[in-house]
Amino acid sequence: MEKNFRIIPDKAFGFKPIVRIRDIDAVVHNYLLFKERADKTGSICAAVLKAEVYGLQMRYVAPELYNVGARYFFVAELFEAISLREILPYTDAKIYTLGGILNNEEPYFKKYNIIPCVNCIEQLERWNQFCQKNGNSSVIIHLDTHMNRLGLLDDEVDILSKNYNDLTSNLKVEFYMSHLYDIKGDDFTNCNKQIKILKEYTDKLPKAPITLACTDSVILLNNSEANFDMIRPGIGLVGGAPNAGHPIGPDAKLTLEIYAKISQIKKIPKGQTVGYGGSYTTKRDTVMALVHIGYKDGYLRLLSELDSAPKGVYMFINGYRAPIIGKISLDATTVDVTDIPDNVLKEATYAEVVGPNVDIRILADKSGCYDIMVALGSDNKKINDYTLKEYKQLFEH
Amino acid sequence: MEKNFRIIPDKAFGFKPIVRIRDIDAVVHNYLLFKERADKTGSICAAVLKAEVYGLQMRYVAPELYNVGARYFFVAELFEAISLREILPYTDAKIYTLGGILNNEEPYFKKYNIIPCVNCIEQLERWNQFCQKNGNSSVIIHLDTHMNRLGLLDDEVDILSKNYNDLTSNLKVEFYMSHLYDIKGDDFTNCNKQIKILKEYTDKLPKAPITLACTDSVILLNNSEANFDMIRPGIGLVGGAPNAGHPIGPDAKLTLEIYAKISQIKKIPKGQTVGYGGSYTTKRDTVMALVHIGYKDGYLRLLSELDSAPKGVYMFINGYRAPIIGKISLDATTVDVTDIPDNVLKEATYAEVVGPNVDIRILADKSGCYDIMVALGSDNKKINDYTLKEYKQLFEH
Repeated sequence: MEKNFRIIPDKAFGFKPIVRIRDIDAVVHNYLLFKERADKTGSICAAVLKAEVYGLQMRYVAPELYNVGARYFFVAELFEAISLREILPYTDAKIYTLGGILNNEEPYFKKYNIIPCVNCIEQLERWNQFCQKNGNSSVIIHLDTHMNRLGLLDDEVDILSKNYNDLTSNLKVEFYMSHLYDIKGDDFTNCNKQIKILKEYTDKLPKAPITLACTDSVILLNNSEANFDMIRPGIGLVGGAPNAGHPIGPDAKLTLEIYAKISQIKKIPKGQTVGYGGSYTTKRDTVMALVHIGYKDGYLRLLSELDSAPKGVYMFINGYRAPIIGKISLDATTVDVTDIPDNVLKEATYAEVVGPNVDIRILADKSGCYDIMVALGSDNKKINDYTLKEYKQLFEH
Repeated sequence: MEKNFRIIPDKAFGFKPIVRIRDIDAVVHNYLLFKERADKTGSICAAVLKAEVYGLQMRYVAPELYNVGARYFFVAELFEAISLREILPYTDAKIYTLGGILNNEEPYFKKYNIIPCVNCIEQLERWNQFCQKNGNSSVIIHLDTHMNRLGLLDDEVDILSKNYNDLTSNLKVEFYMSHLYDIKGDDFTNCNKQIKILKEYTDKLPKAPITLACTDSVILLNNSEANFDMIRPGIGLVGGAPNAGHPIGPDAKLTLEIYAKISQIKKIPKGQTVGYGGSYTTKRDTVMALVHIGYKDGYLRLLSELDSAPKGVYMFINGYRAPIIGKISLDATTVDVTDIPDNVLKEATYAEVVGPNVDIRILADKSGCYDIMVALGSDNKKINDYTLKEYKQLFEH
């Protein structure tokens, strides 16, 4: 399979060893794919923008999603919601915090017009009391359908059911929400159990719209019964989920590219160990290169190649795979460049760490979670950042 | 063992869920412990400040170390060296880059008076040629004593030996350096092999001072033969190494404290699963709390408590241990608070994630590496940051 290796001129690096390119148009593209599916069941398509949109950055993404019609936005914590409100100061842009509403945060929620997804009766009571004195407001009530993480469990749902009017006297319940916890290929046993519990919960409560979501944004679209009144894609928007059977599949676009400088090509005889702990042994006479990205930069240590845990992760250098060898260090990673012809290697100055030839979903899969997306997307002074649009204007016109 | 649980007033959090306190005096204290040992062998005590001093921040640490006499500073990359030069604009403050000198970086090295630790002949040649046109400068030559990561291996050492005068005609070789890769308790077999190789290498080369270092800053002080002319403690300065047998041991101070808000206390019956993947099962009727720190915040997913991989990591709430249960999420972690008396739990608003009761070296050990220190120390808008001195002035006077 022929793929494109992006030519990064040296000046794009400046005096930094890493270039990161964020494709905001691709996020919008992915959002519209989800919206198309939501439209089929008459559901709203919200957008989860927590963790700076899993590394893509709210300040780039949020205005573009608003421009194509998104109006419902979820983040994790209050401080993210405040940042987002400053980016989207529009009355029709609704902002929700998945982390609930903590002690003494009430005035901020009011001031910035943010709606909490309350996770327990105590939060509901506190928000309701605050709104009694300071004016009515909205709320989402998080019901825990035995994921046993966020939300009201059976006993609290009963309390809510019995005291609904008192507990919500100054609140508009915009949605009930819940979260699915277990997606294993096509086995929806646990999901269906959770949907059943959700229906039992909501049968006890006054009617309100419902929104359900899950890891990897995977299940919702295969099972339109689970779309309810609003879907809330998150990691799916940025194409970073580990699940190869992603339902928006081949139409979804990847959103992140990372390139890191290489240096110091050298020969290591067969049978020697490489790196910390001597935990990788060369299987042949090996030519090695050093790539200037490490676990500090979000290139998770879990991707290391050890004799005891071969992962098979690779980078890509000018048309060739360069497999990782040894433990990933804080600031650098060693790769095997034996199979790259000398004339190609001589000209090579950087490696593709993530991009068209190195699918981040495979890295997510190899490291067990999509935290690779968040880690590689974090603020990092070692990186020169561009949006794809900026990059093209500067270096590909 | 009675320990101190720091009382964090709510206003210290502001509208953020995490408070981080960095003890810069403790870093200085640890530096002086190393210096004392270095003095015994007449060696210089340098300081490795890479990755923003493993999270402690160069802008705080570097001036204090300079004040107590440190003059030799190592960082990983050029961009770090430039930041450090702006913090320490003194001619007697020497700054070295462990990552070498990449293509086209030469003018920056010259402009900011930074010295590269060159890792290969190509870098040495390039730097020497640049200095021929732009004035003599210094260099450290990194010799790879079969760690097979950074530095010149046997074949390049031979090239250096045969062409030393040409290759260094415009350079002063300040040091030869190398790095030890394998510390396993008291087994110094591989270390001693490396020291032997280092002596073979340097026997072939003109005399120059030598500096050797290793993971965890562990070996140097037990084996004064390995001190050579300069020791280079790094993670040891910030007390974050996983090795319980740390040689500066009980005298070393921990440098980082992290506190995160808790919310949503609820009861989960025995035998239910908790969190993503349903990968942890409650062993008893369990009271659970949500702590607002997750893997995005550097609380590594590797610390999760799964049925298949029990780790036994805990937080600390007002005098009591609160063990982690289930997978760590992006923004939150679930803990078991069953053993905390109701009246204590009712008043509790935050947990100690790292601090006097939760030794970061144990977290480092449980997650297999000291990257926990770097991860928890990273830039993060979710955190209210204080140095310990600032914190005491604001909240403990």
